[in-house]
Amino acid sequence: MYYIGIDLGGTNIAVGAVNEEGRIIAKTETPTLASRPYPELVKDMAACARRVMEEAHITEDDIHSIGIGIPGVASKDGMVIFCTNLGWRNVPIRAEIQQYINKPVFVDNDATVAGWAEYQAGVSRGTNSSVFLTLGTGLGSGIIINGKIWAGAHGAGGELGHVVLEVDGVPCTCGKRGCAERYCSATAIIRMAREACSDAPNCAIMRAVNGDMDRINAKVVFDAAKEGDSVAVQVFNSFIKYLTIDINNVISFLDPEMIILGGGVSRAGDFLLDAVKAALPEYLFYPTLGCPELRLASLGNEAGIIGAALLGKE
Amino acid sequence: MYYIGIDLGGTNIAVGAVNEEGRIIAKTETPTLASRPYPELVKDMAACARRVMEEAHITEDDIHSIGIGIPGVASKDGMVIFCTNLGWRNVPIRAEIQQYINKPVFVDNDATVAGWAEYQAGVSRGTNSSVFLTLGTGLGSGIIINGKIWAGAHGAGGELGHVVLEVDGVPCTCGKRGCAERYCSATAIIRMAREACSDAPNCAIMRAVNGDMDRINAKVVFDAAKEGDSVAVQVFNSFIKYLTIDINNVISFLDPEMIILGGGVSRAGDFLLDAVKAALPEYLFYPTLGCPELRLASLGNEAGIIGAALLGKE
Repeated sequence: MYYIGIDLGGTNIAVGAVNEEGRIIAKTETPTLASRPYPELVKDMAACARRVMEEAHITEDDIHSIGIGIPGVASKDGMVIFCTNLGWRNVPIRAEIQQYINKPVFVDNDATVAGWAEYQAGVSRGTNSSVFLTLGTGLGSGIIINGKIWAGAHGAGGELGHVVLEVDGVPCTCGKRGCAERYCSATAIIRMAREACSDAPNCAIMRAVNGDMDRINAKVVFDAAKEGDSVAVQVFNSFIKYLTIDINNVISFLDPEMIILGGGVSRAGDFLLDAVKAALPEYLFYPTLGCPELRLASLGNEAGIIGAALLGKE
Repeated sequence: MYYIGIDLGGTNIAVGAVNEEGRIIAKTETPTLASRPYPELVKDMAACARRVMEEAHITEDDIHSIGIGIPGVASKDGMVIFCTNLGWRNVPIRAEIQQYINKPVFVDNDATVAGWAEYQAGVSRGTNSSVFLTLGTGLGSGIIINGKIWAGAHGAGGELGHVVLEVDGVPCTCGKRGCAERYCSATAIIRMAREACSDAPNCAIMRAVNGDMDRINAKVVFDAAKEGDSVAVQVFNSFIKYLTIDINNVISFLDPEMIILGGGVSRAGDFLLDAVKAALPEYLFYPTLGCPELRLASLGNEAGIIGAALLGKE
């Protein structure tokens, strides 16, 4: 059997046909055009699904199910409860897509879906429990316990970005203060770098962006830190400290078999991973007990399609 | 069948025989005398188990299993890995007790065991997921997911007291800083009250303890807050704020069906519960989604025996 995976992003809708092994055998994409009424958007999803089926030379009979990863919260019965980027509330996406392709439809949060992809076909395959962290604009997460997705009793779990790491800390876009994603994300690195650069106009970060603070991003900071620029090293170390404490919180809370770092910031690879691994022992509550394996995500952007597709395998 | 439950505390060992419904039908206790070599202590456990069997008019044939709740970390194969109060490391408690009573032996952390008791025979019976918080000297926790205890892949999970709530915050006994139990425990209430009282020598708290700060405890603070003393109200509100943020963190992380407050501080009952319930909506990431039911523990001190006994039912 094959599985259709739909990765619904704010900019593009990426759709793929995925085989039993979790490999994409055909894929396509189309602009989201997020301001459209949702029925038009869903119609495009279905058209993309048909296109990948054709391309993969498979028919509807070969399809087990359709899975959709959304940047929001879904209910077990296939409703999108919230999807802030798209301005969606209570959208019956399952029923809508079944008008075009009458197959079982599963919907889940995009970070959860990415964690599920790594568990089904990536780095955490074979583990029993894992927590996937996406270090991007925000901090997303996907929790797997006993081989199953855990998104909470009401769908509000696995929101590690909004676990408070500093009471009364940095104001968050969610209205609270001190949420973990204010400290453990690309956005956090940029904020910390801008603060540091305002006192150091000649540092390597500022040279790299020709003095334009709006051009600072995580890669610029990491590259300057690799070169040994003292301002960049300070920002990098500060980010690593917060991220390591956050990872240690995952351990004290759930102690999964594996913790996976994904998202744009994780493209820094071993430079990031080695720094976290070096800092972690200082924060462990049980330093002599075994500790989750810390790994980089392996599926990159394809995790969105693969994980969504394989929701039908849960 | 019946189950033997052993609640191993720093001061007393409490032992009970528990029936299928989770009711204690006979119990006894003996001083722990923690400095003794562990074989002597385990011998006393076995003697107490024999005593409750006699008292309950049951024999070894009626016993399904023996469960032990310890203030520390246990492994799946019946070893006590750490038990700081008792100075234990790698104690083969299962093998030791089986010399006296040859039945299956299960060992787990005391807060986990209390959460299991509430799930099997108390307030969270019938739920699928719950997080139990013991607000005592420290902050302990027990996590149930899909009807099973979750203590982590290496036994280091469910340590919510050592999840960091404030980076670089109040130093913790564990060596880290800002751990949740520094803000959400009887110890935290006492610390905050002492700080507040040092500027307010005539407040109701100080009057209640005749000016002796060493006599301040959570009950004194809560009683003064109930009377409306402004210093006590300020300490109480501060505690409620931290506890509510911590509870909200449990929601953003796991979103269980129910969150249960137990331990000495929870004896404040509805005064505590109502304050947390009133504060919680301000911190919810998804205020319009369903939210875990917040309840007080129902089994009190008996949770230790009942939960340990029913470990054999997992």
